[in-house]
Amino acid sequence: MTKVQEKMNHHNGVNLSIQRGFVTKLKSGLKETFFPDDPFRTIMEEEKLSRRVIKGVQYFVPIFEWLPNYNLRIFLSDLIAGLTIASLAIPQGISYAKLANLPPLVGLYSSFVPPLVYAVFGSSRHMAVGTIAAASLLIGNTISSVVDPIEDPTLYLHLIFTTTFVTGVFQACLGFFRLGILVDFFSHSTITGFMGGTAVILILQQLKGIFGLKHFSSKTNIIAVIQGIIANRHEIRWETTVLGIIFLVFLQFTRHLRTKKPKLFWVSAIAPMTTVIVGGLFTYLVKGQNHGIQIVGHLDKGLNPISIQYFNFDSKYLSAVLRAGLITGVLSLAEGIAIGRSFSVTDNTPHDGNKEMIAFGLMNLCGSFTSCYLTSGPFSKTAVNYNAGCKTAMTNVVQAILMALTLQFLAPLFSNTPIVALSAIIISAMVGLINYEEVIYLFKVDKFDFLICMGAFLGVTLISMDVGLMISVGLGILRALLYVARPATCKLGKLSDSGLYRDVEQYTNSSTIPGVLIIQVGSPVYFSNATYIKERILRYIKSEETSSGDIVEYTILDLTGVTSMDTTAIEGLLETNKILQSRGIQMSLVNPRMEVMEKLIASKFVEHIGKESFYLNLDDAVMASQYSLRTSKTNYNEDTA
Amino acid sequence: MTKVQEKMNHHNGVNLSIQRGFVTKLKSGLKETFFPDDPFRTIMEEEKLSRRVIKGVQYFVPIFEWLPNYNLRIFLSDLIAGLTIASLAIPQGISYAKLANLPPLVGLYSSFVPPLVYAVFGSSRHMAVGTIAAASLLIGNTISSVVDPIEDPTLYLHLIFTTTFVTGVFQACLGFFRLGILVDFFSHSTITGFMGGTAVILILQQLKGIFGLKHFSSKTNIIAVIQGIIANRHEIRWETTVLGIIFLVFLQFTRHLRTKKPKLFWVSAIAPMTTVIVGGLFTYLVKGQNHGIQIVGHLDKGLNPISIQYFNFDSKYLSAVLRAGLITGVLSLAEGIAIGRSFSVTDNTPHDGNKEMIAFGLMNLCGSFTSCYLTSGPFSKTAVNYNAGCKTAMTNVVQAILMALTLQFLAPLFSNTPIVALSAIIISAMVGLINYEEVIYLFKVDKFDFLICMGAFLGVTLISMDVGLMISVGLGILRALLYVARPATCKLGKLSDSGLYRDVEQYTNSSTIPGVLIIQVGSPVYFSNATYIKERILRYIKSEETSSGDIVEYTILDLTGVTSMDTTAIEGLLETNKILQSRGIQMSLVNPRMEVMEKLIASKFVEHIGKESFYLNLDDAVMASQYSLRTSKTNYNEDTA
Repeated sequence: MTKVQEKMNHHNGVNLSIQRGFVTKLKSGLKETFFPDDPFRTIMEEEKLSRRVIKGVQYFVPIFEWLPNYNLRIFLSDLIAGLTIASLAIPQGISYAKLANLPPLVGLYSSFVPPLVYAVFGSSRHMAVGTIAAASLLIGNTISSVVDPIEDPTLYLHLIFTTTFVTGVFQACLGFFRLGILVDFFSHSTITGFMGGTAVILILQQLKGIFGLKHFSSKTNIIAVIQGIIANRHEIRWETTVLGIIFLVFLQFTRHLRTKKPKLFWVSAIAPMTTVIVGGLFTYLVKGQNHGIQIVGHLDKGLNPISIQYFNFDSKYLSAVLRAGLITGVLSLAEGIAIGRSFSVTDNTPHDGNKEMIAFGLMNLCGSFTSCYLTSGPFSKTAVNYNAGCKTAMTNVVQAILMALTLQFLAPLFSNTPIVALSAIIISAMVGLINYEEVIYLFKVDKFDFLICMGAFLGVTLISMDVGLMISVGLGILRALLYVARPATCKLGKLSDSGLYRDVEQYTNSSTIPGVLIIQVGSPVYFSNATYIKERILRYIKSEETSSGDIVEYTILDLTGVTSMDTTAIEGLLETNKILQSRGIQMSLVNPRMEVMEKLIASKFVEHIGKESFYLNLDDAVMASQYSLRTSKTNYNEDTA
Repeated sequence: MTKVQEKMNHHNGVNLSIQRGFVTKLKSGLKETFFPDDPFRTIMEEEKLSRRVIKGVQYFVPIFEWLPNYNLRIFLSDLIAGLTIASLAIPQGISYAKLANLPPLVGLYSSFVPPLVYAVFGSSRHMAVGTIAAASLLIGNTISSVVDPIEDPTLYLHLIFTTTFVTGVFQACLGFFRLGILVDFFSHSTITGFMGGTAVILILQQLKGIFGLKHFSSKTNIIAVIQGIIANRHEIRWETTVLGIIFLVFLQFTRHLRTKKPKLFWVSAIAPMTTVIVGGLFTYLVKGQNHGIQIVGHLDKGLNPISIQYFNFDSKYLSAVLRAGLITGVLSLAEGIAIGRSFSVTDNTPHDGNKEMIAFGLMNLCGSFTSCYLTSGPFSKTAVNYNAGCKTAMTNVVQAILMALTLQFLAPLFSNTPIVALSAIIISAMVGLINYEEVIYLFKVDKFDFLICMGAFLGVTLISMDVGLMISVGLGILRALLYVARPATCKLGKLSDSGLYRDVEQYTNSSTIPGVLIIQVGSPVYFSNATYIKERILRYIKSEETSSGDIVEYTILDLTGVTSMDTTAIEGLLETNKILQSRGIQMSLVNPRMEVMEKLIASKFVEHIGKESFYLNLDDAVMASQYSLRTSKTNYNEDTA
């Protein structure tokens, strides 16, 4: 572009000629939406094809990234961590399977195959794979609504495998199509509220185990559960209750120990296993069954049987299967990705949301073929893994091998585990998930976040888990839409010491210029807020005229914050200009951004309103208006003279 | 505040002490959301209570605003306009009632009571109240899906009254609770596409009348309609077809005349009435019924009977009634408010969306009590009213009186009206609604708006009207959420001539400072985009380091465009800071806005990152970084020396 051309295309410094092609804009839009982390950059940087292939394989299969540099020293760290999480995996596997109304063995199976798959494809170094309490309960609830797990346990089990398959396909697709954006809609506040609510109802539900009840409410909301306990209070057994309280006190004490002396984390890590062993021995020795202490019951030896032939896509159950699969899929991703990310930030190790989604998807897919149900990266287990000093995903391999040995040789030993021990383990784990400090923080910092959090909490505890989740996510989206429909605008004034233009409400020492109104618009303007922006501008003018008594002659819109516009917004701006003109007010636009400028040019808005109304700099626009104010006043004085 | 205190609370000019109370923030939030036009200002400005009451009544009942100044001259204008729209109301009333499978009389009733109600409560001066084609078809379709209008016409009619009642209550509530924000989600693009699609299917449907067919498809989508014509082609009557084509040519010619000579608008305005009269006379004289020309049939004399006793809230039909009521309610509001607004902008006359909603609601409520069905402000009729020189809502009174006289004395005369004349009237009106120029404009200016428009058009023509509408609104909301999830960021560079910092992509003559990266974030940051923003910043750093070879030591975030933040965003910012620190990069924040600052203070973010990282001015931040870059280099040189 020659200097002359450049000068012609610029006015008051504003670039009036910019116009990118449609394909360029589309490409950049797609890239920002789906590839914000620019994943293929490192691959494309390599010059040799062979290096590119290696980098590509390393990108898609992270095990190839860390395995070549693996050594004995790292392995020793991973071995200790693997032993620790395996000791947690056995009691957790059995208890969470109970939550989903599944045979305890399915819980153990789920800690064998999925961790192996994750070790190959997972991008996080700290993730410990296993079943999770909230999703177990949710999946159990949803499938129970179409098939009774006691009346037809086989069909129920098959539907659970099908659900896991659906979850796997869904998660892998999300990752493959790079829809990590969906997980972004689960905010911290939603997760905090949801976890807290789930913890409360889980604790209440486990009172069944602690009191040794045989009948109980099948619903999860708080009122139904309390009614269930009261209705069956004649079944309460003191033997179980005493045992339960002892286990609980022990588990809570070890947790307390961990917070006091972080080095003793292993005490709390092996505490659940200890509870299971001690409880099992005790029940065996005193013949607990005769005293009303319920036990897990017979457990078969042997590794995961193949389950692919059991998938059931009968239309009668399909809607429940899909609902359970999709909701638990997103939920477990949100939990797994959040926990993985927080540890990777602490340690500055790699973590990639989209890769995690693919890894989770593959792990549930393979799981559904081999008699496992939904797995993810549970908060508690991953934290233990991290504290135990894990270095790579090899800990999951160690966990899987130990689980395989247990399944092959030791499974029958766990048949004597008292249910009350499992209930105590779940309650103890759940107490830690009620994060009331975070809730107080939310209340202090952001009332709407608090509302989102309480929406999830109250929804989960009073109605049901999926409704609670939907209420909370819905509130989040409502907030997003409100931000979009009512963008913040502010009146700018000049700071005397620096000459900057800033919000007059925020900087009370700023001063305004009589007759000139400067408004900053702080958001994309489009259909949902075009009318609002128009009305807001008119209201600023009205209140300016009432408060100062000066007639507004110039309205300057600072568009720095307006990153984009649509056609409705352009029409709204034209309307505003028409109304202002009819009142003798001139409108200038300052610093329109690239995307906005492109559309203003294409829609002939620039031609209509005139190039001279555009400024690059607020100061220039203000000076131009002041100059013309003075001129008009001089003219007026001359006229009247 | 003393000077010393003020100095303590400011750092680098940033106001670090601002903290509004919760109630203040809530009040201002509610006001911006629901009262952006500050409606009670003029009332509250009055000092005397009596004046306040008068202003208040005038505010809520706009007729008191214009009636006191009403005079004969204005009335003459209104009389002519009223005569014109009444001559349009009779044929339109009969034809649109046919679209909704209703007796023609109901169409005429609907132009008597509702216009009277609107005249009292409506805020627009140009609105001509009547039934609208799209909503008539939509309401007819939805209710037909639960009750057959031919098998049980009485029940069908009662359900239509009930639907109108639901619409009225819904619209009045929207206005009362100031939820005009909902209507904002119908963008111009949606309305253009929806109108075009509706026009196409209406034209196709009216081929039934033109060809004189007796059987036809009950579905509205394009394929079903064409199949219906082909299946019944043996019923085509040449007499009707010839008559239909003559009427169509006549009507299109008068429309053409209007665009050529706007003064002759009245020719096209009375053309439909002429068609009806000529058609009726002709059919009467040649005994058209014997030649296969279908006529409207017997019409009773008399004004609207009371219909309140017919409301039917039977749960069997309730869901269809509610669906039809809500969708047509929002749809007719969107059309009515859009048309009212566009004329009020042209003439600078008052128009208030929330008042219009209340007026529309009351008019449908009263209508549902008196045998009317859904009314709104149709595009065509309002445009005719405007062209005929209407001055106030009195034209609606004139229209209503003429309609009352017609109903009382002339109704039986219209029994000979041939159906083909009505079909020609509808087709001719619909041709004008296919706004292909607007579609081309959308395609040129904004591809996503074009997509939204085509979504509505194709959805309506290929699937059904409500699905088309939902697709389009859904796309609009998706776009809003994408804006929100992927806010525009850009890298800033310094313009050499003005010293301003602007987007380097937009202003290619701007230059960057080695080692310092300036990023402008252009949107509220919160849960849905916190991760994205983090990744985008890291990507900027990576690409800066690869392209220039300099190591980035300072990252300056310009927060001017960040109008608000939530707790997830604050956490994300802390995460980003942690990652940057681990790479030895220092982060500064420039010009945080009031709401953002409040939350950064409340969440202890400011304490954590340090006051010295905040700047009011980009220049200061850049200078500070350059100073410290030089110092560190000097130190480095000294160290190595």
